[in-house]
Amino acid sequence: MDRTTGPESEPRAISLASLVSTLGGEAVGDASWALRGCATLEDAGPDELSFVIHPRYLGRVPNSAAGCLLVGKEHAARWPGRTRWVHPEPYVALRGALRALHGDAPLPEVGISPDAGIAPNAQVGELCTIRPGAYVAPRANLGRRVVVYPNVYVGKGAVIGDDCVLHPGVCVYAGCVLGQRVTLHANTVIGQDGFGYATTKLDGDDTVKHHRLPAVGNAVVEDDVEMGANCSIDRATLGSTVIGRGTKFSNNVVIGHGCKIGPHNLFVAGVGIAGSTTTGSHVTMGGHVGVAGHLTLGNRVTIAASSNVMHDIPEGETWGGTPAQPLTQAKRVLLQQQRLPELAATVKKLEKRVWALEQDAGNA
Amino acid sequence: MDRTTGPESEPRAISLASLVSTLGGEAVGDASWALRGCATLEDAGPDELSFVIHPRYLGRVPNSAAGCLLVGKEHAARWPGRTRWVHPEPYVALRGALRALHGDAPLPEVGISPDAGIAPNAQVGELCTIRPGAYVAPRANLGRRVVVYPNVYVGKGAVIGDDCVLHPGVCVYAGCVLGQRVTLHANTVIGQDGFGYATTKLDGDDTVKHHRLPAVGNAVVEDDVEMGANCSIDRATLGSTVIGRGTKFSNNVVIGHGCKIGPHNLFVAGVGIAGSTTTGSHVTMGGHVGVAGHLTLGNRVTIAASSNVMHDIPEGETWGGTPAQPLTQAKRVLLQQQRLPELAATVKKLEKRVWALEQDAGNA
Amino acid sequence: MDRTTGPESEPRAISLASLVSTLGGEAVGDASWALRGCATLEDAGPDELSFVIHPRYLGRVPNSAAGCLLVGKEHAARWPGRTRWVHPEPYVALRGALRALHGDAPLPEVGISPDAGIAPNAQVGELCTIRPGAYVAPRANLGRRVVVYPNVYVGKGAVIGDDCVLHPGVCVYAGCVLGQRVTLHANTVIGQDGFGYATTKLDGDDTVKHHRLPAVGNAVVEDDVEMGANCSIDRATLGSTVIGRGTKFSNNVVIGHGCKIGPHNLFVAGVGIAGSTTTGSHVTMGGHVGVAGHLTLGNRVTIAASSNVMHDIPEGETWGGTPAQPLTQAKRVLLQQQRLPELAATVKKLEKRVWALEQDAGNA
Repeated sequence: MDRTTGPESEPRAISLASLVSTLGGEAVGDASWALRGCATLEDAGPDELSFVIHPRYLGRVPNSAAGCLLVGKEHAARWPGRTRWVHPEPYVALRGALRALHGDAPLPEVGISPDAGIAPNAQVGELCTIRPGAYVAPRANLGRRVVVYPNVYVGKGAVIGDDCVLHPGVCVYAGCVLGQRVTLHANTVIGQDGFGYATTKLDGDDTVKHHRLPAVGNAVVEDDVEMGANCSIDRATLGSTVIGRGTKFSNNVVIGHGCKIGPHNLFVAGVGIAGSTTTGSHVTMGGHVGVAGHLTLGNRVTIAASSNVMHDIPEGETWGGTPAQPLTQAKRVLLQQQRLPELAATVKKLEKRVWALEQDAGNA
Repeated sequence: MDRTTGPESEPRAISLASLVSTLGGEAVGDASWALRGCATLEDAGPDELSFVIHPRYLGRVPNSAAGCLLVGKEHAARWPGRTRWVHPEPYVALRGALRALHGDAPLPEVGISPDAGIAPNAQVGELCTIRPGAYVAPRANLGRRVVVYPNVYVGKGAVIGDDCVLHPGVCVYAGCVLGQRVTLHANTVIGQDGFGYATTKLDGDDTVKHHRLPAVGNAVVEDDVEMGANCSIDRATLGSTVIGRGTKFSNNVVIGHGCKIGPHNLFVAGVGIAGSTTTGSHVTMGGHVGVAGHLTLGNRVTIAASSNVMHDIPEGETWGGTPAQPLTQAKRVLLQQQRLPELAATVKKLEKRVWALEQDAGNA
Repeated sequence: MDRTTGPESEPRAISLASLVSTLGGEAVGDASWALRGCATLEDAGPDELSFVIHPRYLGRVPNSAAGCLLVGKEHAARWPGRTRWVHPEPYVALRGALRALHGDAPLPEVGISPDAGIAPNAQVGELCTIRPGAYVAPRANLGRRVVVYPNVYVGKGAVIGDDCVLHPGVCVYAGCVLGQRVTLHANTVIGQDGFGYATTKLDGDDTVKHHRLPAVGNAVVEDDVEMGANCSIDRATLGSTVIGRGTKFSNNVVIGHGCKIGPHNLFVAGVGIAGSTTTGSHVTMGGHVGVAGHLTLGNRVTIAASSNVMHDIPEGETWGGTPAQPLTQAKRVLLQQQRLPELAATVKKLEKRVWALEQDAGNA
């Protein structure tokens, strides 16, 4: 991991030809042009690469001073006068160009701050970084090259794999396990008690109260998982809450106790999953989606933003709405809902017309 | 409070007969069998107790190696060959077994860390635990046996009752009050300013702006309240925002300024209540529920997950939908909504049939 | 800024006449009466000011012992026997009275704690307050009179303008910029990586994975912005995520990468905006509103609580529903939705009646 480059370092100059040779796609125009960075269409100058992927922004191209435009194949023939990089997967090309021209965000200098709190019997691997105000509890075990920012808490016996990055204020509760290369953004919490109560009268008490079930389990976050800020992942009552390898959460995502989230899922901000739900691989959920507990969602299921899921979903299906249903059916219903005032008016008129016919028939 | 046992200590061995004698229910099969822990159906071995409460998991029993099954009375006759613990309230039995076999999560060793910041005129009761990086501001008052984890902030003059547990990153603002045995999970915030603005032109300014109202009140969290991670409880503009005794919140719950949440409420993750709303006792809200401001919800009201409440709700009622209405009516509407495409088609046909009848009548 | 007064100091005594002379409106009754504070209708005593603005609370006035009632013009003639302060903008009057009688919340004493971590080459302006456990990274730049509470993190090269207040646990990532007088409540996070991935097979890997795009941009929070607790504001992939001057967020608001939120917006708790969306000035969103990415909302747009916006909205319009539409249309649809069971029953009867008519016609 190169920790000396990044957004704060001077971008390098790379020719379009060089980008094409390492990242693929096709150069149209002057491929020898040296690019010194990536920028938005508004901000980019003649020595910068910009991109047009979302159709929304096509109209901004004429006014852009960008020296090179990264575009998908569907726009290959547009803007003939300009230097273009036509790529079958423009987000892949953009990622490569960002890494080549700007590098990843720099990490703090390796080393253990004397102002960090590290319990004597915690294990800290080689080349770790632990910043001031972080605390690593007894028997916690940090792998190699782990980066722990200020005010992070790693609980008793927690295991943090190689190359994890815990941003400020992250809390990993006792006994939880992170795999390798896990990134948790600021104030995300792993392993608080799940929401498990026995609601009853107990011990001669006349009032029905909620009595906590001890959470004996933990939370396990597998390799290459990334989470945004302010996420909350419950520990399990028994066994483990699992976040599968390669899965990515945006901000303020909440996962209930005992969930088994599969690998390579993508959850946009504000998703909330109730306890004991299982998802397959490559499941995608839009923002603010809610999923009830004890459900099973198959591989490659997609849920539209703001939907609320109350049933199992078979592999490969796309659902939406509240309660969620297959998206084509949800759209048919929605379309008719929008026309409801007209439908009601039609029915009212029909009633009159039928009444008139009935009068006629009666009179006849 | 026994701080030496917990999930990390060796589970004890207890016979089913002993569990039945202290926790009730009935043993079926070999009650002398020694149980050494609780586990999920998948994980449990011959010396472990597992449970089947949710009908979803009945099918997993045959493949489970669990030595004993805790079941509700409705399943008393199932799995005749296996040792069972039949209990009228299986969650109560499970809670008791978890406590007997595993204990509650262990708390850190009692004592004030020299790396905690405690203002000279803060009061700290007997047997408190204050961990490194926590800060207790002037005139704050901690009762006895309070546990303050790293990076917690207790503001000026805040009062924390006996046996409270503040997990890492919790913030209790100045002047707020926690009762006894309150547990706040990581990064939960009590007492930030409420969202109160006077929106107007002021002081000769030509632009309409939002001008903050000082929040003179505080937030009061009563005895035995528990909150998950990343909750946000506003302080009141005047008087107190109140969270009633015994109430439990899951993660990322937001309570607006001036709310009076009653005792023994249960709010699942992501619930948001706007300012000045009042709830009775034993109110339950599913995940992602939103409630408008200035409303009154009676005792024992239940709100279905993902609903949005815009009206007062009388005692004892169950509501759902957006806007929420009594659940039976909400379900009737929902059912018809799903059939809307068919209804619209029927109306279209009716129009043709009526038109044909009208033609006939006209021709006649 | 007067840091010695506030809710914790003794309120001053001010006559109603004096409030009227500085804040406007009209006194009805004994204007010489000395007021010593503001309180709710329930709590206020004879030397306190209370207010009745929301119609919900009119009925509480007769039982209130408040010495003076602040009311809007619409209630000018009510409660003739009582001392009243009639004001055309009662929230503005209330704000003024709260400030005059109670002051703003007091800030901690100015000074840099020896227990704060401040990198040697960070810049800290005059009269700053930095409390124990806060950390200011290399090349960060704090203006004058900035208040940094415990366990705050200010990243490398971040810029914090004059008079900002960062409450406990706030995290401002590297390179982000706050203007002047920005207030961020506890555990709010500015500038975590946005949710940008290229989803593909890479480097000979057989599995489709999500590959992070480096976030080269930052987040910029303009003057006079205030945010509640636990908000999450993404940094941009390129350029800046912008929160416009004077804009106010309640708690747990999430803003996606590359959004340009306009000035003087008001977002209630739980609002979530997906990436690259732009809002004009004076946009208002109720609680739990979701907005899709790449949209444009015009000046003075208002969105009803719990709505989900999936289209651009022109200047000045009020929208609601899921998907959101102009509120009048949304209400028409909603009204018909509630009547759907009756409509379906009517259609069923119509079918029978038409069938009967058809039989008659056939028989005829």
